[in-house]
Amino acid sequence: MQKTADIGKFYYFFPQTVAMVGVNQNVMPAAWHTPISADPPLYGVLISPKRHTLQLLSKENGFTANFLEFNFASLIAKTGGVSGRNTNKLDKFGIKYSPAEKINGPILQESYAAYECEKFAMHEYGDHFLCIGKIVMIHYRKDIIRGQLIITIDPSTLSVFKRE
Amino acid sequence: MQKTADIGKFYYFFPQTVAMVGVNQNVMPAAWHTPISADPPLYGVLISPKRHTLQLLSKENGFTANFLEFNFASLIAKTGGVSGRNTNKLDKFGIKYSPAEKINGPILQESYAAYECEKFAMHEYGDHFLCIGKIVMIHYRKDIIRGQLIITIDPSTLSVFKRE
Repeated sequence: MQKTADIGKFYYFFPQTVAMVGVNQNVMPAAWHTPISADPPLYGVLISPKRHTLQLLSKENGFTANFLEFNFASLIAKTGGVSGRNTNKLDKFGIKYSPAEKINGPILQESYAAYECEKFAMHEYGDHFLCIGKIVMIHYRKDIIRGQLIITIDPSTLSVFKRE
Repeated sequence: MQKTADIGKFYYFFPQTVAMVGVNQNVMPAAWHTPISADPPLYGVLISPKRHTLQLLSKENGFTANFLEFNFASLIAKTGGVSGRNTNKLDKFGIKYSPAEKINGPILQESYAAYECEKFAMHEYGDHFLCIGKIVMIHYRKDIIRGQLIITIDPSTLSVFKRE
């Protein structure tokens, strides 16, 4: 084992999915996200205060967390490359969606699953805000649930982790 | 898209790695974990108050987060099936480790990467505690870093996600 106290970007926890966080008419990819609690069902996403999404969320009652298969990775990356301040990313990238039912955010049509999360708590830790929502509705593609399997991932896509 | 307000175990965010959280002479698998901040470098793991690990952590200065390749999944699951209250899991399962340098916890010898995390914040949300540590040291296997690649995962292992 090597060791270093030069922490850098510490991307050693990969792989994991990216959550596409939707608020109002905007989406952003959140690479940092996790379940927080089972009962109540809470989900957390980390958002930098630099992000337009955090401003939007301050005015709304919640967010959506959308999960897309890996073949959408390029699209997901693109949505992280522009700000929703000046651009409607959903229009710009032709992302189809329908409005969530209980919060003001988009459910992406191409997602295999999406959560509707009502704002539960927000807390600043370091350079990000942990935004916790209570999951009040789950949308999912029935066709990806076959027997006990939910989803498989293209294995060729898992070795993209670059060391910087 | 189907939808449901019966939230259940909401395992739709998979796949992701499991962090083996080490405190003192004990380890537990944390399926819920995420980076929290880049600067300072913060990492968060979710631990139920039922867990012995949380009691240990209340007395220690931090924890380790160890990442193992998927062929250790069975071992990881086993460590989650017994409590460290009555059993030294490291001994029981023959898990080799060395002590971390800056905190009181194990660095698992078989991990491809491990963080040493000094306690930074703890906060109860719902039925779990978010335990945030500042990453002060990273251990990693040099041999898994070849060029730009860090790790690949056996694709056959990614379709084990059971719907309950």
